[in-house]
Amino acid sequence: MSLEEVTGARCVQPSAAAKSALRPISATRVDVLGGFWGERLRANRERTIPHGFAQLGRAGTLDNLRLAAGAAGTYRADADSGGALLPFLDSDVYKWLEAVGWELGRGDDPGLRASADEAIGVLARAQRPDGYLNSFVAATRGGEPYTDLPWGHEFYCAGHLAQAAVAWHRALGDDRLLRIAVGVVDHIDREFGAGGRDGIDGHPCVEMALAELARTTGEGRYLALAARMLDLRGHGSLGDGRFGPAYWQDHEPVRYAAEVAGHSVRQLYLDCGAVDVAVELGDEELLSAVRRRWQDMVRTRRYLTGGLGSRHRDEAFGDPYELPPDRAYTETCAAIASVMLSWRLLLATGEPRYADAIERAVYNGVLSGLSRSGTEFFYVNPLQRRTHRTFESDGHGRRMPWQSCACCPPNLMRLLSSWPQYLATADDTGVQLHQYAPAVIRTPVGGGEAELEVRTGYPWDGRVEVRVARTPGHPWTLSLRVPHWSGAATLSVAGDAPAPVPAGVAERTRAWRPGDEVVLVLDTPVRRTEPDPRVDAVRGCVAFERGPLVYCVESADLPDGAVLEDLRCDPAREPLTSPRSDLGDGVIGVEVPVAGGGTVPAVPYHAWANRGPGGMRVWVPR
Amino acid sequence: MSLEEVTGARCVQPSAAAKSALRPISATRVDVLGGFWGERLRANRERTIPHGFAQLGRAGTLDNLRLAAGAAGTYRADADSGGALLPFLDSDVYKWLEAVGWELGRGDDPGLRASADEAIGVLARAQRPDGYLNSFVAATRGGEPYTDLPWGHEFYCAGHLAQAAVAWHRALGDDRLLRIAVGVVDHIDREFGAGGRDGIDGHPCVEMALAELARTTGEGRYLALAARMLDLRGHGSLGDGRFGPAYWQDHEPVRYAAEVAGHSVRQLYLDCGAVDVAVELGDEELLSAVRRRWQDMVRTRRYLTGGLGSRHRDEAFGDPYELPPDRAYTETCAAIASVMLSWRLLLATGEPRYADAIERAVYNGVLSGLSRSGTEFFYVNPLQRRTHRTFESDGHGRRMPWQSCACCPPNLMRLLSSWPQYLATADDTGVQLHQYAPAVIRTPVGGGEAELEVRTGYPWDGRVEVRVARTPGHPWTLSLRVPHWSGAATLSVAGDAPAPVPAGVAERTRAWRPGDEVVLVLDTPVRRTEPDPRVDAVRGCVAFERGPLVYCVESADLPDGAVLEDLRCDPAREPLTSPRSDLGDGVIGVEVPVAGGGTVPAVPYHAWANRGPGGMRVWVPR
Repeated sequence: MSLEEVTGARCVQPSAAAKSALRPISATRVDVLGGFWGERLRANRERTIPHGFAQLGRAGTLDNLRLAAGAAGTYRADADSGGALLPFLDSDVYKWLEAVGWELGRGDDPGLRASADEAIGVLARAQRPDGYLNSFVAATRGGEPYTDLPWGHEFYCAGHLAQAAVAWHRALGDDRLLRIAVGVVDHIDREFGAGGRDGIDGHPCVEMALAELARTTGEGRYLALAARMLDLRGHGSLGDGRFGPAYWQDHEPVRYAAEVAGHSVRQLYLDCGAVDVAVELGDEELLSAVRRRWQDMVRTRRYLTGGLGSRHRDEAFGDPYELPPDRAYTETCAAIASVMLSWRLLLATGEPRYADAIERAVYNGVLSGLSRSGTEFFYVNPLQRRTHRTFESDGHGRRMPWQSCACCPPNLMRLLSSWPQYLATADDTGVQLHQYAPAVIRTPVGGGEAELEVRTGYPWDGRVEVRVARTPGHPWTLSLRVPHWSGAATLSVAGDAPAPVPAGVAERTRAWRPGDEVVLVLDTPVRRTEPDPRVDAVRGCVAFERGPLVYCVESADLPDGAVLEDLRCDPAREPLTSPRSDLGDGVIGVEVPVAGGGTVPAVPYHAWANRGPGGMRVWVPR
Repeated sequence: MSLEEVTGARCVQPSAAAKSALRPISATRVDVLGGFWGERLRANRERTIPHGFAQLGRAGTLDNLRLAAGAAGTYRADADSGGALLPFLDSDVYKWLEAVGWELGRGDDPGLRASADEAIGVLARAQRPDGYLNSFVAATRGGEPYTDLPWGHEFYCAGHLAQAAVAWHRALGDDRLLRIAVGVVDHIDREFGAGGRDGIDGHPCVEMALAELARTTGEGRYLALAARMLDLRGHGSLGDGRFGPAYWQDHEPVRYAAEVAGHSVRQLYLDCGAVDVAVELGDEELLSAVRRRWQDMVRTRRYLTGGLGSRHRDEAFGDPYELPPDRAYTETCAAIASVMLSWRLLLATGEPRYADAIERAVYNGVLSGLSRSGTEFFYVNPLQRRTHRTFESDGHGRRMPWQSCACCPPNLMRLLSSWPQYLATADDTGVQLHQYAPAVIRTPVGGGEAELEVRTGYPWDGRVEVRVARTPGHPWTLSLRVPHWSGAATLSVAGDAPAPVPAGVAERTRAWRPGDEVVLVLDTPVRRTEPDPRVDAVRGCVAFERGPLVYCVESADLPDGAVLEDLRCDPAREPLTSPRSDLGDGVIGVEVPVAGGGTVPAVPYHAWANRGPGGMRVWVPR
C-alpha cells in the first residue's frame, strides 16, 4: 500500500484522471467568518460534537466496541425496540470520528483530540489480527463474519470507518484510522473481491467509501471492488425481505433503474458510490443513470424542504407526487445523503442545479434536524405537525438528545464539519462559488494563488460581495451561482454598473487585480409557492419562501385562542417580512396575511420546534 | 364448570342480568335468501373458508401446532420478514374454526366438518396436561409460558381460541373446543387471576373472549379475570416498547382515556372487552368511556370507507383529521373490529348510529379486503392508489391469496359467517331490523313466535319490504333503522299511504297480522360528499356515495390515454348512475361528470382491484 501525501481536507476528491468537471478545494483553505454559517459551525464544534461523544458513551456504543476489544460487559443496542439489537451502531462512532477529523484539520482542540484518541484506541484494540472489526458480530454471532448480508450492515460499517479514515488522512495526515480501515476492507476484499464470493450489503455505503479509499491509497483493488459491488446489485440476490427488494436497492441494476425507489438513504448512498465509480472509470452510462434518477427524484419525490422519503414503515421514497406533509418521513440522514449526492453530481457535471439542490436541502431539511442548542436532534422532519399530536417515535414534537437508532446526529456532525468544502471549487481556469457565507477562500488558480473575501448577510440578505484580495496576474474566471429562486439578480464587477444575470451561473473572466470587487445582488421577496397540482396532499394550500429558506407557521406564534388548523391565508394580500431576533441574530421572519384580516408570523422551517412542542405547518390552506 | 345448553348462534350474548338495551337473535334463525349478501355468504362458505384451510396448511400454521403436538419438523412463521418469527399465528387457526362453527350451525358441510375435525384434533393433541397450548412458545421458548407479555400474544391467542370454542358451543353444542379453551384459560387464570401475578397482554383480545366464556359457562371467574385485566391496563406495565405505550393500550386507564389511540385493532378489541364487562357488571362509567372514545373516533379518525388507522409504521390511529387517502393503513381487521365494537354498543344502547357505523364499515372498508373470487385478500385498504405505484407490502395493488401475517383473511371469514346475526335483534317488546338483506327471520317476540320475510334489492335499491308471515296475536313493535344517509325516507304500514320518516329508527307498534306488509323506501341519489375542512389530505376534493356505498374511480375504467391523476370532476353537473353487470349481478355504478365534458365511471369501493392492478381514487379533485 502506498499512502499518498496529505492532499487537503476534501470529503470527495476525484483522482487526476477522473472525468470531473469541477475540482473541490480543501476545507483547510476556507475560513468561514461569522454570519449564519459561522454560528452553526462553531456550535457544531463546541457543543454538538462533544455532546456526541458523551452520548456514544452513555448509549453504550463505545462500550460495545470495548467488548469486542476484550472488555467484560453486556452488549447494548436499542434497548427500547422489543429486544431487537441494531447491528450498525459502530457506524455512529465512525461518523463522529469523521466529523472530528475535519474539525481538527481546521484547528486543534485538545478535548476533541483526546476523545478521538480514546475512540481510535478502542478500535485498534477491537480489530482482530485478520483485520475484521464489528462489535455486533463479535457479540451476537460468535465472531462469524458475513452471515447476514441483507440485514447485517457489515460492509456499511466498514464504509463509514473508511470515510472517517480518509478524513483523518486528508485533513490531518493521521493514518491510525486508515490502517484499521484498510485491514477491515482488505478482509472484505479477500472474501468478496475479484474471483471471490458474490456479495452485497443490504445497506449501500461501502461503495463510495471504497472509491475514496482507492483515491487516497492509490489501490485500484478498492475501486474494482466498488465497481463489482455495483454490478452485483439489482439482481435480487438479497431476497424479498420484509419490504421488497427495492428496500435494499436490489430490484434493478444500478445502471438501468430509471427511478429512485425503496429506502431513501440506501438509494442516495448507493448513487453516491455510483457517481464516484463512474467518474473514476469514465463510465458515462452509469453516470447518466444516476443523473436520470436524481432528476426523477427532484421532480416527483422531493419535498419543498429538500426532504426525501414519504413512508415511515420502510423509510422509503413513495410514489411520484406522494408527498404528504404530515406523514413525511424525510429522515435527516436522507436530506444529508442528498447533499452528498448532489455534491458529487455538481463536481462531475458543473451544473448549478445540483448546487441549488444542496442549498434547498441544507437550509431546510438538514438543519431542521438540529436544535438551536446544538444538542438535540430530529430523526423525522415532517412539514406539518398537528397541534393535537399523537406520539410517533418523534419525542412528542421535541428533538431528542440522542436516539436508539442514532444515525442522524453524527451524520449532521460530519456534514457540518465538512460544510466549508461545499462553498467553492477551483481549477486552472478559475474559481466557482456555489454557496454563500462570509469567508476567506484561498486556492491555487492557474498556477498562482488567489484569495477571495466573501462578505454577505446570506441567507437573510441577498447581497454577496466578493473581494479579490490576492490573484495571479493572468486572466481567470470567477463564477457565481445565481440561485433558481432569484427572480431578478444583478452582478457588478469592479465598479461597473449592475447588470442583470439569469439564474444559473454568472461568470466573469478577466485579469483580476487585488481589490477588485464583484457584487451579486439576489432579489429576496417573500415568495408564495403553489404546490404541483399532482401533489394531492397539499391541494388548495400555499407555502412561503424567501431566499433559500422555506417558512412555516408555528402554533407558538399564534394569538391565544387561535387554532393552527383553522388558519386560512389570504392570497389577495402580500406577505411581508419582520425581524425575529428572538430566534437568533439577524433572523428574518415572514408575516402571512390571513383570512379575516391581519397576519400571523412564520419562521424559517429549520428553526421550528425550538420553543416547546406545538403545531406547525409549511403548507397553509387558502 | 357447568356448561349451559345450546343457546343459539350469537357471537355476543349478554347474560340475562346484563344491562343491554337489545338482545341478539340466533343466526340459525336467520336465512339470508340471495341478493347482495346471499352471494357473499355463499362464496365465504364454499370458496373462502375451504381456501383458508388449504392456506393454513400451506403456510405451516397447522404444522406449527402439530409440532407442539409432538410431530417432527421445523417451526414456520413469516419466512419473509428477515428471520423474525410471528408469535400469534395460532390465532389464524382459531378464527378459521370460529367461522366454521357458525357455518356448520346453519347447515352441515362434510368437507368443512372434516377439515375442522382435523384442526380440532391437532389442538387436542397439542394441549399440554396443564392446559397450556401455544405453538410459538413450544417451539421457541422451550415451552416456558408468559415470558414476554408485551409481544408474546399468548392471551391474545387464548382469546381467539375461546371465541371459536364459544361459537362451536352456541352454534352446534359441540364442546371439544370449549374443553380445550377452558384448559388454556384456566392456566392463565391460575397464574394471573385474583391474588395472582399482575399481567396483561400487549394485544388485547382475551377480555371479550373471557366475558363470552363466562356467559357460556356461567363461570364468574372468567368475567372477574377480564375485569381485572381491564383494570391493570393503562398503567405502563408493558413499558414503552418500540412505539410507545399507546401501541398496546397501556398509556391510560381504560375507564378514563378520552380518545382512541395507538394500534387501531388493539384499541377496538380492547373496547369490545370493555363493553362486554361493563354491561355484565352494570359499570356505567366504563361503558361511557368506550362510547366517548367511539364518538371521538368516528368524528375525527374514521375514513369515509369506515376504515381506521392512518399510520403504517405502528398500525395506529393518527392524529385527529390525519386521514391521508393514499397513506391510509385501514387494515381490514380494524374495520372488522369496528363492526364488533359497534355491534356491542348497539346492543348496549339501542342507538341506531352504531348500526349506521356497522353499515358503513361492512359495505366499504371490510368487503374491500376480499376479492370477488373470495380467495384473495387485502391487508391494507387505502382510499387512493396512484397509477404509478411503488411496492409496499400490498402485492402490487392485487389482493393476495394469503399473507405471512394472515390475521385479516380468517377475520373476514368469521365476520361473514356471523353476518346474519347482525341483521336484527328481538326481545319481548318487538323486533329491530338493523341491516337489510332478503331474508327470513324467525324469532320469539313477547311470548310468541314471529316470522318476518324481508325482500329488498339493497344496497342497489332503497326499497325494503317486510312481510309479517307469522306473529303472536298481541301487539309488539317493529323497528327499522333509517340510515343517516337517506335524505328522504318513507314508511308505509299494511297498505297505509307512505309517511316520511326521519333518519334514526322508524317504529310501529300494533297487533300485527299475518300478511301485514311494511315498506321502507330510502332515497338513493348519488351523493357528492364534501370532506371535513380539517382533513388536510383531501382538500379541494369530493367523493361520491350512493346508499351505504362509497364509490371510487379506477384507471381500468378510463379511456385510453386518460391519466387518473389528471382527472378533475365538474361540480356543476350532477352525477348519474349506470348498471355495472360486469362487476356482479345488479351492481349499480356511478358516472362522475368531469372537467372538459363527459363522465368517467366510478365503481363501489369494495369492488375495486378486481381487474388487475391499476390506479384508484375515492376523493376526486374538483
